[in-house]
Amino acid sequence: GVHKEGLLYEGKAKKVYTTGDPKRLWVEYKDDATAFNGEKKGTIRGKGRLNNLISAALFTYLTRQGVANHFERLLSDHEQLVRQVSILPVEVVVRNMAAGSMAKRLGLEEGRKLSRPVVEFYYKKDELGDPLINEDHIDVLGLARPEQVGQMKSVALKVNRLLSRYFAERDLILVDFKLEFGLTAEGQLLLADEISPDTCRLWDSQTQEKLDKDRFRRDLGGVLEAYQEILNRVGGEQNV
Amino acid sequence: GVHKEGLLYEGKAKKVYTTGDPKRLWVEYKDDATAFNGEKKGTIRGKGRLNNLISAALFTYLTRQGVANHFERLLSDHEQLVRQVSILPVEVVVRNMAAGSMAKRLGLEEGRKLSRPVVEFYYKKDELGDPLINEDHIDVLGLARPEQVGQMKSVALKVNRLLSRYFAERDLILVDFKLEFGLTAEGQLLLADEISPDTCRLWDSQTQEKLDKDRFRRDLGGVLEAYQEILNRVGGEQNV
Ligand SMILES: Nc1ncnc2c1ncn2[C@@H]1O[C@H](COP(=O)(O)OP(=O)(O)O)[C@@H](O)[C@H]1O
Ligand SMILES: Nc1ncnc2c1ncn2[C@@H]1O[C@H](COP(=O)(O)OP(=O)(O)O)[C@@H](O)[C@H]1O
Ligand SMILES: [Mg+2]
Ligand SMILES: [Mg+2]
Repeated sequence: GVHKEGLLYEGKAKKVYTTGDPKRLWVEYKDDATAFNGEKKGTIRGKGRLNNLISAALFTYLTRQGVANHFERLLSDHEQLVRQVSILPVEVVVRNMAAGSMAKRLGLEEGRKLSRPVVEFYYKKDELGDPLINEDHIDVLGLARPEQVGQMKSVALKVNRLLSRYFAERDLILVDFKLEFGLTAEGQLLLADEISPDTCRLWDSQTQEKLDKDRFRRDLGGVLEAYQEILNRVGGEQNV
Repeated sequence: GVHKEGLLYEGKAKKVYTTGDPKRLWVEYKDDATAFNGEKKGTIRGKGRLNNLISAALFTYLTRQGVANHFERLLSDHEQLVRQVSILPVEVVVRNMAAGSMAKRLGLEEGRKLSRPVVEFYYKKDELGDPLINEDHIDVLGLARPEQVGQMKSVALKVNRLLSRYFAERDLILVDFKLEFGLTAEGQLLLADEISPDTCRLWDSQTQEKLDKDRFRRDLGGVLEAYQEILNRVGGEQNV
């Protein structure tokens, strides 16, 4: 059976271990919270478990809807088994409303509905603070091939359509979210990493209450309670 | 005949006046130099004249090569007559080598040749510090229609091909440059504003010496001499 081997890498939110199987990785979700490119740090006991379960539920839903992704199965309440991919160093952000860095950069009011979803690419490189880039930058930096960029964009927009509806049915507004993609050894592009309140902005449809990482970024309190509320609305542990 | 009427607006580098003719504007190039979004200021006596003459020479060349632009004729050594357009609030930058903000943002060595020209769009908005944007941002902000964006991009790449060759024949490397576009009352997209050492990075092909606004930005001295050298290489006042 699958077993945990050596630590492959440790990121800000997860530890990734090799397994006996070269195609599979063992991901452990941590309780660490970071924001503003690592400048703000904290620990939120229980966050790793909630993000692991939420991410598993969302990837499971996306698999059912035909979106190829790395998730295989839960290993424990804070661990999951995923397909090993080489992550493309491009973060793909989709936005339905102006918020966070986009609102600030472009002088827009937070919560302003955009006339259509906006896709942004960021160069995943901590030393540079993950700068916004365009498709020409991706090409000359050799971060991904133009056809992969096109694929990432169309998958991101499909995920947006699917998750916007999925969350709307659960009284949640999907304001924006970040995706990461990777390539399998065979060159297949897979949606990877995580989809959780750490990587999505989710507002309660009725009250507009923020139920995501902005509670940590902006010291609003009740971080764990918000993440627990998201897990409840995506169906708790049953749906995974 | 054409005559200068009221001041329509004064920018950082030029004053723009109405004329008796609603289709034409009187542009006066100033000796003011600014950099870093107006944070650094200076006066370089004679710069207005040089940029007016250089810009006129380059627009004249582009007209001959079939690139529709606003330039009509010189009015004096520091003034020119142009077609009135409503400027689209998008600056279009084309880069052949990494330099300036791109080198810094993406961690590239200045002067690194790019595998192909990179086109960037910036939101022309001083209060926001002219942020980098993508085509989705242009669309949701309503800054230009998608087909206009496509046109700006293809004209910018054509200008890059033409001017790269033009400057190469004059022992100059066109590292990067910024263009502005506007719409006539009839809706025609015209290349507008200026093309000068204030808006292009130009390096001597032999010595790599910077012959552009970076001499001012970086306190290298010899700003006027560099701009005069560019005017000499584009053919002095004859070619206009
Ligand atoms: N299926 C996968 N295969 C390989 N690496 C992955 C996979 N999914 C996610 N990763 C990577 O695991 C690392 C750890 O995740 P995380 O702690 O979120 O890192 P970061 O600090 O970069 O946000 C990240 O580099 C992420 O891209
Ligand atoms: N043909 C034109 N019609 C109308 N406005 C123009 C034209 N060409 C340039 N402009 C505008 O003239 C203004 C003054 O130029 P400049 O001093 O360079 O301004 P800025 O401070 O914005 O760089 C700018 O807003 C520029 O976009
Ligand atoms: Mg992460
Ligand atoms: Mg200007």
